[in-house]
Amino acid sequence: MKKYVFGVDIGGTTVKLGLFDVEGNVLDKWEIPTRTENDGTQILPDIADSIREKMQQMDNDTVIGVGVGAPGPVDSEGVVHRAVNLGWGTFSIKETLENLLNMPVMAGNDANVAALGEMWMGGGRGYKDLVVVTLGTGVGGGIIVNGKMLTGATGAGGEIGHIHVDDAETEVCGCGNKGCLEQYSSATGITRLANRMLASCDDASVLRDGEVSAKSVFDAVKAGDALAIKVAEQFGEYLGNGLAAVAGVTNPEAFVIGGGVSKAGEILLDYIRPHYEKYVFHGSRNAKFTLATLGNDAGIYGAAKLILDLEN
Amino acid sequence: MKKYVFGVDIGGTTVKLGLFDVEGNVLDKWEIPTRTENDGTQILPDIADSIREKMQQMDNDTVIGVGVGAPGPVDSEGVVHRAVNLGWGTFSIKETLENLLNMPVMAGNDANVAALGEMWMGGGRGYKDLVVVTLGTGVGGGIIVNGKMLTGATGAGGEIGHIHVDDAETEVCGCGNKGCLEQYSSATGITRLANRMLASCDDASVLRDGEVSAKSVFDAVKAGDALAIKVAEQFGEYLGNGLAAVAGVTNPEAFVIGGGVSKAGEILLDYIRPHYEKYVFHGSRNAKFTLATLGNDAGIYGAAKLILDLEN
Repeated sequence: MKKYVFGVDIGGTTVKLGLFDVEGNVLDKWEIPTRTENDGTQILPDIADSIREKMQQMDNDTVIGVGVGAPGPVDSEGVVHRAVNLGWGTFSIKETLENLLNMPVMAGNDANVAALGEMWMGGGRGYKDLVVVTLGTGVGGGIIVNGKMLTGATGAGGEIGHIHVDDAETEVCGCGNKGCLEQYSSATGITRLANRMLASCDDASVLRDGEVSAKSVFDAVKAGDALAIKVAEQFGEYLGNGLAAVAGVTNPEAFVIGGGVSKAGEILLDYIRPHYEKYVFHGSRNAKFTLATLGNDAGIYGAAKLILDLEN
Repeated sequence: MKKYVFGVDIGGTTVKLGLFDVEGNVLDKWEIPTRTENDGTQILPDIADSIREKMQQMDNDTVIGVGVGAPGPVDSEGVVHRAVNLGWGTFSIKETLENLLNMPVMAGNDANVAALGEMWMGGGRGYKDLVVVTLGTGVGGGIIVNGKMLTGATGAGGEIGHIHVDDAETEVCGCGNKGCLEQYSSATGITRLANRMLASCDDASVLRDGEVSAKSVFDAVKAGDALAIKVAEQFGEYLGNGLAAVAGVTNPEAFVIGGGVSKAGEILLDYIRPHYEKYVFHGSRNAKFTLATLGNDAGIYGAAKLILDLEN
């Protein structure tokens, strides 16, 4: 009898759902809206309804359970500790959804769950000690140790975007501190670095001609723009330094770089690796750098893997 | 039938051995010399002989196995990858000692194993996500995630002494890099900070009267010496910053501070905590700071726990 799992990735606007077999093939994939009104109380019932509907076409005995990724700290018991984007306070995702569906549920933080997905079926395949770095609006991290998510005491494991990397910073990060990795290596951070650089000199640059973004910076780098290359070096210096600190803690086999910024491709790694190697302890110098491959599906893959691991 | 385990901590000069019951009571404790000649080939046979001798007074069936901590990177399979102090290259400690003793063996890096010891029976009791920081000649770290040692890909997990914390440093660390945490927060680092401070000003200080050491600095702090207090603030700023980075990765419940420097007592924590809280991501702000309690015995306790965990 073939067995199946559901993987669910809860975002601020939509919930992604996937049906997987145990080999990691996605058999079906769909989305429902995230109803954040009334403190998000309808979100889990909506998910339960959607899964039940899908199961009407299946034999119930064949479903192992449901894995869930949520945008907030989720501890190892499946309890979320405030997810502001969803209007959620503190409660057990696991217990609530188990009661709704009457089947096993596992839950984790979305970035950590996505890391599990990249390990299982994405850029981190073949590794069991890895760090998935998501360079998007912010810098997120998911850390896998010996094949398992590093959740941490309060579900804040892998929050590497707020590692301090610059004492001289005067602007405040969203977290309230100054000099966080996220201020330089996220899409927003790269834009900030580029605008600072443009304001500080009169050097010619294609970046002066249009809207500055992480994409326009790396497009300019590929076109050989000298100023953009300086920005990329700064980005790489900060990120290489930050990831070297991460490696000093977990000694991973590989870093998997994802998020919107990673669409720049392999060239991105060329700007990170040399700085990483400069700062890192020699025992971790040979860590591999690779790109994430699952994109926005990493969350549903990882959520599926989370519940699958219950069986093993 | 009562069950027992042996815990072995291999140092550069002596090997510490302990016989434990499964509740963590140490029943016997002794040392043998570490014979590092001939590439340290005699070290494991000497340990095997010493354990066999002890076992002649016991019923063999009651011994679960032997745990070993060694001063070098040891991977999760029990393979050491060069231990320069012992003359060792790369080989399996686990297999070698299992063949000599015909019973289960587990091995790990000494700092990681000591962290397990502090969790089991020392300053980290009651926590399952913790970081043990050893402030001695260098800065060592042992990281416990969900009750298990974080070994890392090549056994270099927890090498937090080489996290980069100062871009302006001109002196080179033992590892070849510049600005490593160890350069400021080890016993040697504190002495260096104090000598720098003494050379940079003419302020009166009791530190001008004798030999400067980590101990003399913290003795002077306790006596209210203004210059020593400045040094302690610098030490705390660097260490607080470094430990905040560690927390950004693993989100521990607690930091347990050990090593020679920790003999200064609780006052040490007063200089670390405020800086940690300044730099750390809010999800980890409430981590506890506490002192290690097992001293030089942490290694044999942790080694015993390592083999005990096989049973569970």
